[in-house]
Amino acid sequence: MVLGQDAEGCCPTLLSAPMSEEQAVDLAKVFKALGDPVRLRLLSIIASRAGGEICVCDLTPAFDLSQPTISHHLKLLKQAGLIASERRGTWVYYRPLTETTDKLAAVLTGPGSVVAAASAEPAGAAS
Amino acid sequence: MVLGQDAEGCCPTLLSAPMSEEQAVDLAKVFKALGDPVRLRLLSIIASRAGGEICVCDLTPAFDLSQPTISHHLKLLKQAGLIASERRGTWVYYRPLTETTDKLAAVLTGPGSVVAAASAEPAGAAS
Repeated sequence: MVLGQDAEGCCPTLLSAPMSEEQAVDLAKVFKALGDPVRLRLLSIIASRAGGEICVCDLTPAFDLSQPTISHHLKLLKQAGLIASERRGTWVYYRPLTETTDKLAAVLTGPGSVVAAASAEPAGAAS
Repeated sequence: MVLGQDAEGCCPTLLSAPMSEEQAVDLAKVFKALGDPVRLRLLSIIASRAGGEICVCDLTPAFDLSQPTISHHLKLLKQAGLIASERRGTWVYYRPLTETTDKLAAVLTGPGSVVAAASAEPAGAAS
């Protein structure tokens, strides 16, 4: 997925140059996936899990929603490239795809932004 | 708007700790505003404008959409705190609110992220 990056995949273009229609369509899909409180909370729980992954059986109790509804939201997060899943035995396990959130953060970081730089850990600290 | 920040308004919580329902509702509204290709392109054009603002009369020719449709999308971006507008004479002028995109970038920057830090300009370079 291009996610609004240039050909070298390095430079944010949302705030520094007019975005092409094609780039906007790709990027909008990911932001749309984040545009729901349940999906944001699911991503938040998955991303902050100490072990790097979480069983779907530990996700559902956090919500007052049916299993199919939770599964639907997880599917949308997965289609957007925000999480990955793996079935092991009875359960499905989810882990965050931080390269996607990293790219979104870069796309939202303007030429003069200081917040993202200030809040990020020192370079080299891999997640 | 809280935008998923903690009480001191400094620390991203989307990826480092489970987000509260209230925080998720606020944050989802802003991501939802970005979850549309036309709105992303509008924001991109407004944010990358050299003079810091753009007349609505210069925005509409970039789209094959009616003026009321463009106005509707601009209203949603404004409600999300992503742009501000000012009427001067006949026309309305729009400018980006970079503090909102900066906050979103911080929210999406995980404890181990390096992309946003690498892509941001040196601290102190105000937009």
